[in-house]
Amino acid sequence: MRLPAKATHQQTRAFNEGLVLRTLYDLGPISRADVARLTGLTRTTVSDVVADLLSNGLAEELGRGPSTGGKSPILVGVVADSRNVVGLDLGEGAFAGALVNLRGDVRLTDEEPVNGPDGGEAIAATYRLIERLLAAAERPILGIGIGAPGVVDTETGVIRWAVRLDWQELPLGRLVSERFGLPTYVANDSRAAAVGEYLFRQGGRIENLVAIKVGTGIGAGIVLGGRAFQGDGHGAGEIGHISVVDDGTLCRCGRFGCLETIASTRAIVVAARVAAAEDPTTALAAPARNGQYPTLDDVRDALEAGDETARWIVVAAGRALGRAIAGLIGTLNVERIVLLGRVTVLGEPWLDAVRDEARRRSLGPLVEHTSIELGSADDDIVMLGSSALLMTRELDLVPRR
Amino acid sequence: MRLPAKATHQQTRAFNEGLVLRTLYDLGPISRADVARLTGLTRTTVSDVVADLLSNGLAEELGRGPSTGGKSPILVGVVADSRNVVGLDLGEGAFAGALVNLRGDVRLTDEEPVNGPDGGEAIAATYRLIERLLAAAERPILGIGIGAPGVVDTETGVIRWAVRLDWQELPLGRLVSERFGLPTYVANDSRAAAVGEYLFRQGGRIENLVAIKVGTGIGAGIVLGGRAFQGDGHGAGEIGHISVVDDGTLCRCGRFGCLETIASTRAIVVAARVAAAEDPTTALAAPARNGQYPTLDDVRDALEAGDETARWIVVAAGRALGRAIAGLIGTLNVERIVLLGRVTVLGEPWLDAVRDEARRRSLGPLVEHTSIELGSADDDIVMLGSSALLMTRELDLVPRR
Repeated sequence: MRLPAKATHQQTRAFNEGLVLRTLYDLGPISRADVARLTGLTRTTVSDVVADLLSNGLAEELGRGPSTGGKSPILVGVVADSRNVVGLDLGEGAFAGALVNLRGDVRLTDEEPVNGPDGGEAIAATYRLIERLLAAAERPILGIGIGAPGVVDTETGVIRWAVRLDWQELPLGRLVSERFGLPTYVANDSRAAAVGEYLFRQGGRIENLVAIKVGTGIGAGIVLGGRAFQGDGHGAGEIGHISVVDDGTLCRCGRFGCLETIASTRAIVVAARVAAAEDPTTALAAPARNGQYPTLDDVRDALEAGDETARWIVVAAGRALGRAIAGLIGTLNVERIVLLGRVTVLGEPWLDAVRDEARRRSLGPLVEHTSIELGSADDDIVMLGSSALLMTRELDLVPRR
Repeated sequence: MRLPAKATHQQTRAFNEGLVLRTLYDLGPISRADVARLTGLTRTTVSDVVADLLSNGLAEELGRGPSTGGKSPILVGVVADSRNVVGLDLGEGAFAGALVNLRGDVRLTDEEPVNGPDGGEAIAATYRLIERLLAAAERPILGIGIGAPGVVDTETGVIRWAVRLDWQELPLGRLVSERFGLPTYVANDSRAAAVGEYLFRQGGRIENLVAIKVGTGIGAGIVLGGRAFQGDGHGAGEIGHISVVDDGTLCRCGRFGCLETIASTRAIVVAARVAAAEDPTTALAAPARNGQYPTLDDVRDALEAGDETARWIVVAAGRALGRAIAGLIGTLNVERIVLLGRVTVLGEPWLDAVRDEARRRSLGPLVEHTSIELGSADDDIVMLGSSALLMTRELDLVPRR
C-alpha cells in the first residue's frame, strides 16, 4: 500500500499543473470552472495554473461555452502544436524520424539510410537524423522518443543488446540527451509499435494488446492494462529468440533453431535463395537469371503468380509464427493481436497460415474471441509510439485517436 | 485518465474507512494522530472511523506509544482473529479447506475426498467441506475464497471450463454465496497459488512472479506488478494446453500433443505403465507383480533407486516443461518462476531437466537473472492465496509475510 507522503509545496504545485494540463488535454475545450469541478482543485488554483499554461503557450482560450445561468464561460484547450516531439524508428535499411505534435499528428518526416550492422555508423546516423529534424523544427521541442531494436532498458536508456546494429550496453538515451540537451526516451521498437497501435489505431479503448513486428528480426510489444509491459529485465516480448526447432539452423544470437530462423523475412529470403538454386523452374529463380538473389518482394510476386514453392516457404514461415502466437495466447489470453513489419507484404496466404496454426494449437475457450489482424500498412507506428511514450513521461499526456 | 468523480457522502465515508483500516493493518500498532498524518484525513474523521472499527471488533487498542512531547498516544491495531476466511483448494484426489485469519494464519484445516470427474458430486463435496468449516468456526466469517481448476471468470465466479471436474459454465461463486449467505471469490487454482506464493513466501517484495502448478493438469498463475493477471478471457496461464508435440497423443481437452500429454503427472504415470509392460527389468515393473500400476511415488522410488527407465521418463517430462518455461521467459521476462504441485516429489532430477531446457532455449540476457525454484512443499498455498484474494476484495487488505 502506498500512503500519500507529506508533499512539499513545489510537489503539490507540479501535481496540480499536471492535473489541470491533463484535464484540458483530455476534455478541452473546457471552462476553468469545469476543470475545478472535475479535479477538486479550487477555482483560484485552476486559474493560476491556466494563466501559466497560457503564458508558456501550452494552452489557449477558445471562445465561450454555453452559459449555465451567468456569464458564458471562456473555454480553454491545449495547443496541439505548442510543442513538437522528435520520434525515431531505428528501422531496417533506414532510420526514420518525424516531428510529431502533442496530438500525435506527424508534421514532418525524414530518413537516413543505414546499411548493415556497424554500431558506430548507426550512432552517427541517429545523430544526423536528429540534427536535421531539429533544424527543420518550427516549434519548441519537448524531447526525443526513440524506438530501437533489441533489449532496451527504458529507465536508463541503455540498449543492452541489439544484434542488428551490433550494439551492446550502449547508453543511447544519455548520449542523445547530452548531445542535444533534450529529454530522451528509448524503447524497444516492437514495444513502441504496440503503444502506437494501442493509442492511435485502437484508440486506447481496450485493456490489452500484443503487437508482433516481423522483419529480419521478430519482437512482440505487450500492452497490459493500458501500459507497455517490460518484464523484470526489460526483455518482455523477445519472442524471436524462443527456440522452436530442435537441431535448427544457427541464429544471429549464437544459438540454434530460434523463431527468427524460420519466421523472419531474413529466413524467408534465405529459403527462397535455396529454392531458386535447387529448382530453376520456380518463379523464385527469375532474379538469378540477372545474377541476383530473390528479395522479399520477389517472394511476394512469385506467390501472387501462383508459384507453389513460394507458397510453401511463406506458409512454413507463417505456421512457425502461428505456433509462437499460440504460446502467447495460452500464456496471456490477450484477445487483440496485431501483426506488423515488412513481412506483412506477403498478405493473405501468410496471414491465413499464421491464424490457422495459432488456432489449431490453442485451447478453444481462449481463442474464440481472439483476433489476429494485420496492423496498419503505415510505416510511422514506431515513431508515433516512441513520441507518445516521451509525451507521457514528460507531461503525463496520453495521446490517442 | 480517470478524473475523480463527485463522490457521495457515503462513498467518501467508505473510502475513508478503508484507508484507515489499511493503515492500521499495514503499519499498526499506530496512533490515531499518525494515521491522520499519513492518510491526510482529519483527526476527527480518523477518530470516528477508529471508534467504529473498535466497536465491530476489527481493531483494538494496544497500550501507549512513545510520547512526542505531550501525553503518550494510545496505539491501535487490527485484530488478526476478528474475522476468519474460508479458503478452499479444489485439488486432485481431495478438496482441502482452511479457516484463515486476517493475517493469513491457518487456524483449522479439513479435507473432503473426491474421486474422478463427477461434476455433481464435486459440488456436493464443496458444500460439505464449507459446512463443516463454518460449523467449526469460532470467529465471524468474512467470506469464502475458492481456488478451482480450469478457466475461471473471477468477476462472476463462473467456472467456464474445468476438465478435471467435468464442470462447464458452472456459476460456483453464486451457488456458494447464495447457499451460505457469504461473499465468495472463485479463482483459478494456479492463480491463487501464485498469489499465495507472492504474498506469503516472497513477502510481496518483488514485482512479478509466475507459479506453475503441475499435477494431472498444468497451469500457471501470473502475478504482474503485484496483481494476478487474468487475460481478456480469464484464461491467462493456461499453458497446459499449448500444443508442443506434432502428432502427439490425445489430450483431455480433445486436442493432440498438449503440454499436459507429456509433462503432467498423469503423462508420467502413463509412461511408467507402458515402460513397465514393455520391460520387466525396470524397477517400474515392481507394482505389476502385485497386479498394480505404478504410481507417481513408485516413479520417484525407482528414480531414487537409480532406475534408468524412470530417469528417462522424468527427464523427458521435465524437458517438456522447460521448453514451455522458455516460452514464458521470452514472452514475459519474469525472473521469478516457482514450481508447485504433486510433480515436485520427483525432486532434483526433474528440476535439473526443467532448468537445463529452459536455459538452453532462452536468450542469454533474459535468463541470466531468472530463478526457477521449487515452491514450498506445504499444501496450503492455494487456500492461502484464495483467502487472500477474498480479503483484498472485501476489505482491501493485502496480507503478506
